[in-house]
Amino acid sequence: MSIVQEFNDYRVKMNQKILEEDNKVLKRLFNLDTNAFAEGALDVKTKEVVGLSTSMVLRCDDCIKYHLGKCYEVGITTAQVFEVFSIANLIGGTIVIPHLRRAVEYWEQLQEGK
Amino acid sequence: MSIVQEFNDYRVKMNQKILEEDNKVLKRLFNLDTNAFAEGALDVKTKEVVGLSTSMVLRCDDCIKYHLGKCYEVGITTAQVFEVFSIANLIGGTIVIPHLRRAVEYWEQLQEGK
Amino acid sequence: MSIVQEFNDYRVKMNQKILEEDNKVLKRLFNLDTNAFAEGALDVKTKEVVGLSTSMVLRCDDCIKYHLGKCYEVGITTAQVFEVFSIANLIGGTIVIPHLRRAVEYWEQLQEGK
Amino acid sequence: MSIVQEFNDYRVKMNQKILEEDNKVLKRLFNLDTNAFAEGALDVKTKEVVGLSTSMVLRCDDCIKYHLGKCYEVGITTAQVFEVFSIANLIGGTIVIPHLRRAVEYWEQLQEGK
Amino acid sequence: MSIVQEFNDYRVKMNQKILEEDNKVLKRLFNLDTNAFAEGALDVKTKEVVGLSTSMVLRCDDCIKYHLGKCYEVGITTAQVFEVFSIANLIGGTIVIPHLRRAVEYWEQLQEGK
Amino acid sequence: MSIVQEFNDYRVKMNQKILEEDNKVLKRLFNLDTNAFAEGALDVKTKEVVGLSTSMVLRCDDCIKYHLGKCYEVGITTAQVFEVFSIANLIGGTIVIPHLRRAVEYWEQLQEGK
Repeated sequence: MSIVQEFNDYRVKMNQKILEEDNKVLKRLFNLDTNAFAEGALDVKTKEVVGLSTSMVLRCDDCIKYHLGKCYEVGITTAQVFEVFSIANLIGGTIVIPHLRRAVEYWEQLQEGK
Repeated sequence: MSIVQEFNDYRVKMNQKILEEDNKVLKRLFNLDTNAFAEGALDVKTKEVVGLSTSMVLRCDDCIKYHLGKCYEVGITTAQVFEVFSIANLIGGTIVIPHLRRAVEYWEQLQEGK
Repeated sequence: MSIVQEFNDYRVKMNQKILEEDNKVLKRLFNLDTNAFAEGALDVKTKEVVGLSTSMVLRCDDCIKYHLGKCYEVGITTAQVFEVFSIANLIGGTIVIPHLRRAVEYWEQLQEGK
Repeated sequence: MSIVQEFNDYRVKMNQKILEEDNKVLKRLFNLDTNAFAEGALDVKTKEVVGLSTSMVLRCDDCIKYHLGKCYEVGITTAQVFEVFSIANLIGGTIVIPHLRRAVEYWEQLQEGK
Repeated sequence: MSIVQEFNDYRVKMNQKILEEDNKVLKRLFNLDTNAFAEGALDVKTKEVVGLSTSMVLRCDDCIKYHLGKCYEVGITTAQVFEVFSIANLIGGTIVIPHLRRAVEYWEQLQEGK
Repeated sequence: MSIVQEFNDYRVKMNQKILEEDNKVLKRLFNLDTNAFAEGALDVKTKEVVGLSTSMVLRCDDCIKYHLGKCYEVGITTAQVFEVFSIANLIGGTIVIPHLRRAVEYWEQLQEGK
């Protein structure tokens, strides 16, 4: 199984368990996520770029994977993704590089349709 | 082997190696941990809730596992654990969600007696 | 003007400006905060202890001030507050100490009714 | 003196002192910054949005001020800035709110031409 | 009053208040600090360099000030301090730069004997 | 395959892919790394100690592995490495301990020539 599939399967399975627990604050927090990334004064592409860059400087591999998937869906190019990577690594420093390596591997698999 | 067993085995094995090295500062730091979570002006349950919530906002999976184990031992309920999760995810933001997923999986295994 | 008054005034003034902007995501996020700290499976005191400890390990002075104010309101004692401080400084490390200094100063002013 | 002027004056004065020290790594790091935010596969506006959002989730007030200044220069609107704020506060959590307050104050002064 | 004096005065005053509270964990944590930076397998200069660099990447202004003071006492040169700064800014990223500015100002005042 | 070999292989493979993408900012950032750790006002050993300690407080396992490898190459002793560990765990807090466990395991394998 590809790392894309593995990530998505675990994410869907666990999100479902979390929502089943019926904690109102967590449910609303999950809903807010959908709202925040919807088309608005900023278009969807820009918002996904924001999602990707903030995930990267915060060094959250799973968040990076999620937003890379979204970036791929909305048609952000490899050159654009690498410009996001470069700003994130400059602002966040070289401690971001290990996350960059895993992000590049994930992006590659997304493009290969895995 | 369950993820609970795997975590505990590795933790015990490596803590032993660390303490064998006979570094005075590390030894005392490990001792302080026991002191800090002992019954005091705050009871043990509240202290474990503090241990769990701080581990979660700091996004330390192993620390979360350790304190989930302790929370389970001292009788904190699933509803209470989820309220801790909800505050931690609100204060720490949605970058905490991937750690929440793994925490929920671990909590489930603890309850199944694995 | 005391540091308590100064903090509260600025907080109220700027929160109002933020909410006036009518950004739905921010408004809901502010609302969630009220929900998350309401009495539930965990009582209000425990939740404020969680708010204080997570604010401290995340080294957010203003968040610490806010939750110290709340802790004071709900009747958490000085000995209890210092146990929260001790766990937060142990888990978060000595980089938390500068925030501890400011927290102690703020707690003192709260008690003097400033 | 406005907080905009105060920030810019100190920044210029201290950057000059840093560069005078003739440390090659620091000089190149400062240069890279100019390169990273130049027009490329992503346009300048998108890059400033990335600069602002990453600064906010990393809770760096001075970085936020700098990128708010740049956002203002390149014509990003208040509604757009608030959408960046909302994503940053959702991803980074409510510990970002104190930085949001100061950001809103700074943005206001920028618009008043201070 | 210089920023050096102001920092030291507040630090001494508040540390005293913290220790008066007689919280055992906090007291021991403060003691550990003295132990950790004592001459050992690593000499005192190297340890202060470690204290300075870790404080900088963790973006703790007061910790940076404290270790700059110590670095100055043990005879670390300006060129050496700037090499620490350069590594810290590279590893920690450009979000460290605002702390670098304040560090350079503090170092200058230390050298002027303020 | 040892964890040392596994880390190095993945690192080399992905760094090559990153550099092939021909993003100027990322390339220069990678180059800066070589510059920053070269002999200067501080010797190479001290710089690697800085690299290790900052990686540890920032809780970056891969960065810790990389600098442990370098520390081993330049002849830093086990007692010295443990003093770095002790300062990093004191400054960064007990959330650093899980990274310490993995660091000790990696250091052991380095010494066994794996």
